[in-house]
Amino acid sequence: MKSFKTRLGNIIFEHDTAAAKLFDVVLLWAIVLSVVLVMLESVASFRLRYGGPLRGLEWLFTALFTLEYLLRLYTAYNRAKYIRSFYGVVDLLAILPSYLSLFLTGTQYFIVIRSLRLLRVFRVLKLVQFVGEASILTRALRASRAKIIVFLVTVVTLVIIIGSLMFLIEGPANGFHNIPVSVYWAIVTLTTVGYGDIAPKTPLGQFFSALVMILGYAIIAVPTGIVSVELSRAEKAAERTCTHCDNSHHDSDALYCKRCGKAL
Amino acid sequence: MKSFKTRLGNIIFEHDTAAAKLFDVVLLWAIVLSVVLVMLESVASFRLRYGGPLRGLEWLFTALFTLEYLLRLYTAYNRAKYIRSFYGVVDLLAILPSYLSLFLTGTQYFIVIRSLRLLRVFRVLKLVQFVGEASILTRALRASRAKIIVFLVTVVTLVIIIGSLMFLIEGPANGFHNIPVSVYWAIVTLTTVGYGDIAPKTPLGQFFSALVMILGYAIIAVPTGIVSVELSRAEKAAERTCTHCDNSHHDSDALYCKRCGKAL
Amino acid sequence: MKSFKTRLGNIIFEHDTAAAKLFDVVLLWAIVLSVVLVMLESVASFRLRYGGPLRGLEWLFTALFTLEYLLRLYTAYNRAKYIRSFYGVVDLLAILPSYLSLFLTGTQYFIVIRSLRLLRVFRVLKLVQFVGEASILTRALRASRAKIIVFLVTVVTLVIIIGSLMFLIEGPANGFHNIPVSVYWAIVTLTTVGYGDIAPKTPLGQFFSALVMILGYAIIAVPTGIVSVELSRAEKAAERTCTHCDNSHHDSDALYCKRCGKAL
Amino acid sequence: MKSFKTRLGNIIFEHDTAAAKLFDVVLLWAIVLSVVLVMLESVASFRLRYGGPLRGLEWLFTALFTLEYLLRLYTAYNRAKYIRSFYGVVDLLAILPSYLSLFLTGTQYFIVIRSLRLLRVFRVLKLVQFVGEASILTRALRASRAKIIVFLVTVVTLVIIIGSLMFLIEGPANGFHNIPVSVYWAIVTLTTVGYGDIAPKTPLGQFFSALVMILGYAIIAVPTGIVSVELSRAEKAAERTCTHCDNSHHDSDALYCKRCGKAL
Repeated sequence: MKSFKTRLGNIIFEHDTAAAKLFDVVLLWAIVLSVVLVMLESVASFRLRYGGPLRGLEWLFTALFTLEYLLRLYTAYNRAKYIRSFYGVVDLLAILPSYLSLFLTGTQYFIVIRSLRLLRVFRVLKLVQFVGEASILTRALRASRAKIIVFLVTVVTLVIIIGSLMFLIEGPANGFHNIPVSVYWAIVTLTTVGYGDIAPKTPLGQFFSALVMILGYAIIAVPTGIVSVELSRAEKAAERTCTHCDNSHHDSDALYCKRCGKAL
Repeated sequence: MKSFKTRLGNIIFEHDTAAAKLFDVVLLWAIVLSVVLVMLESVASFRLRYGGPLRGLEWLFTALFTLEYLLRLYTAYNRAKYIRSFYGVVDLLAILPSYLSLFLTGTQYFIVIRSLRLLRVFRVLKLVQFVGEASILTRALRASRAKIIVFLVTVVTLVIIIGSLMFLIEGPANGFHNIPVSVYWAIVTLTTVGYGDIAPKTPLGQFFSALVMILGYAIIAVPTGIVSVELSRAEKAAERTCTHCDNSHHDSDALYCKRCGKAL
Repeated sequence: MKSFKTRLGNIIFEHDTAAAKLFDVVLLWAIVLSVVLVMLESVASFRLRYGGPLRGLEWLFTALFTLEYLLRLYTAYNRAKYIRSFYGVVDLLAILPSYLSLFLTGTQYFIVIRSLRLLRVFRVLKLVQFVGEASILTRALRASRAKIIVFLVTVVTLVIIIGSLMFLIEGPANGFHNIPVSVYWAIVTLTTVGYGDIAPKTPLGQFFSALVMILGYAIIAVPTGIVSVELSRAEKAAERTCTHCDNSHHDSDALYCKRCGKAL
Repeated sequence: MKSFKTRLGNIIFEHDTAAAKLFDVVLLWAIVLSVVLVMLESVASFRLRYGGPLRGLEWLFTALFTLEYLLRLYTAYNRAKYIRSFYGVVDLLAILPSYLSLFLTGTQYFIVIRSLRLLRVFRVLKLVQFVGEASILTRALRASRAKIIVFLVTVVTLVIIIGSLMFLIEGPANGFHNIPVSVYWAIVTLTTVGYGDIAPKTPLGQFFSALVMILGYAIIAVPTGIVSVELSRAEKAAERTCTHCDNSHHDSDALYCKRCGKAL
């Protein structure tokens, strides 16, 4: 018969039994609610009217998450590994700011780090295909890392040159106060965000901006192209190979080889 | 000889005979006109000048659509199925707001739900390839559902973290009044919409925003890549169906059904 | 020996001889200059200072283009075909507004229709691969026409619904004066243009806008995916087939079949 | 034994030995720091407080880069080739503005040309896959050059027509002062940047703008599609080279060289 510690560990760390699933659902809702609470607390009118209850609920959630963290520490197979894992660090960061806020003001808003715990939803849903999908996405992004670095260095060089030129063209009088601000404008423009808090006013500046925007057209196409190609390659790599005819282009849901008809 | 009810049903529900086609064209124009009417009625200057005729025409269309709905109920082969179908619900929602506006003010603008009836155009044009195309689009979107959920959870977590950080960096004095508003800003920025109603003003905020925008570059590439890959796969898969197991998701180069192993 | 008319026609309509190339280059520069002139004339300060010379130059270009049009009429192999062709209509529209401006004020700005003549550059450069590329682009767009119509009807229905909801949520007090303006806002937001001339101010409006933007994420991916898939298909279709082994996946620059090594 | 000049040249131009790697890292950090310095100097508050030290550090970096340039000249295998190479020109342009600023005011900001030297990072990291990736990107862009020119000519023609129409619709009273400014607005809108410094105010202008934005939807999809297709082809083509004719543009499934017909 399994010990109490093992059974508790199964509920907390696994996602297969009914009790474990209930625990997961309750935990996810608690995370969502506590994040919503912190967000609401930052709204002045809410804080003034419901300040007391809000703080009370926040400490309740902090107590619950602290208890959960201690239970995880107690039941973990490999304590050191859990503490150093991504989820272990996030679990600790999710409760620290509350305690820090007793000594330091301003730290209570760091509680939103808690929202990182939402990523735990991928774990919980691992029974379905989600983790596989996430790992395809991750693999696609990792495979195009080299291209993305080349792309980013080029973009950074470009926005510094563009920003400096616009600083010389438009000057402080038209809102381009200095080169860093002009570089900020260049990024806002190249990424097609376009706040309009800084916008060219001289004809030459507007002409040059138009060139930058059309350049941005081409540039925004590059990461999209990279990700498309890598995604399509990662998907292919995730397919399965037939042991009879060596055909490797099978979809993940295939039961029989589509070339020779043998079972996979 | 077909009964009057059958013949009427053919005109209303089918799209093949000359009479049915005429009915479809008149219906689509009536929908377009009635939606334009509601939109115009919301313009203050129009309402003041043409209030009477506008309301008259609106009731005329409501009467016509009510008559049409009753005829559909009368001639439907399977009445319960029609009422519960997507088009059945939309047909009812298209006339309800007009009657509700007799009792409740403000409901008349819900008449624009009528514009959903425009989607009926896909039905009407089913003789051509449109429904096929729509179902390829729908299938592509459904196939990438898992990836899209992973993507959305990641984006939501990201905008909460980014929004909270910007709230701490910029603060209420610079328009970032609270965390929800800052999260709204983060979404406006990441999606490259960039209204500029809220924009960073401190150098640190602008630097952080620039990072967020460049991150947005990479992020906006992901759904595009996903849809491209799925679209290209859905197109391929639309080609052949297995006569044994009705599985239609075969690649164009498949010789055997990948589900049941029978030759195609 | 070729007649004067034939030789003149060769210079004007063909692009192969030295004289024809010179004519093309001079014509393209004349088009560029005349369009720049009209654009400059619309600038108030320019018009005040250089009004006389500007108008003089404009009439000079109009005279030249009129002469060119008459020569084209005179030398065309098939006059009626030229007049009704795309380039024939554009050539006429390029000179008409100047003459109309003698009778009607305000028509002189229609002279920018002249810029359509710039598309003639595709013709001039036909010796190179440009026309081929243009036709691949055109074919890709035509092939995805059905999908694009499905997409547009869905988007139009969507922006009407979104616009009406925002009109109800935000109301005239926050700049959403009527449904047409709200629909305009919905399009500005969904396409990620985001001027910020109209922006949600209530918390509910901002929340709903955030949903719309994230929806826009997915929606903007659809045309990109469609065009990518069609482009890649159109490119494949432009490839050549080996007569020996029926392999059709050859690049346009291949001399030998890459499968069986036979000359193509 | 290698001469001092050869060993120095190896350190400066190569990236393989420990000394060469140290040189590269120090050089890259020096470039980053000097670019940051120029950017900070443009900030008025910084310049007022730290003007002296800033200028001192700038001259220090200029002296270092001048020394480096002279050493490169001294140790280069082929001096003329180095001077005319991309990196040779950038190295010279990186130090010239500092000396020019002694005679001409305003030239000191051209020092940011130095940031182009950051591209040297691609060289330094050539041991890894970066240069290969950059050349795939470059080749993809070059291969789609013809399509991109067709695209750009079409876009330029389009924005001139759109800008002129909006100038006629909205007019100077609504911020569309002249055709060049309206063309600038058209580019801001089509590229989905959307500053909002100029925005349509009349209903007709807003309706027309909405059409332009939806057109922009389709247009922005084109470069993305082009780059995706070319990237995917460039990746495939990067795989195998023919030993007979040095043609490296073979697909991964080719058995025979498509240029000379020899077996690969």
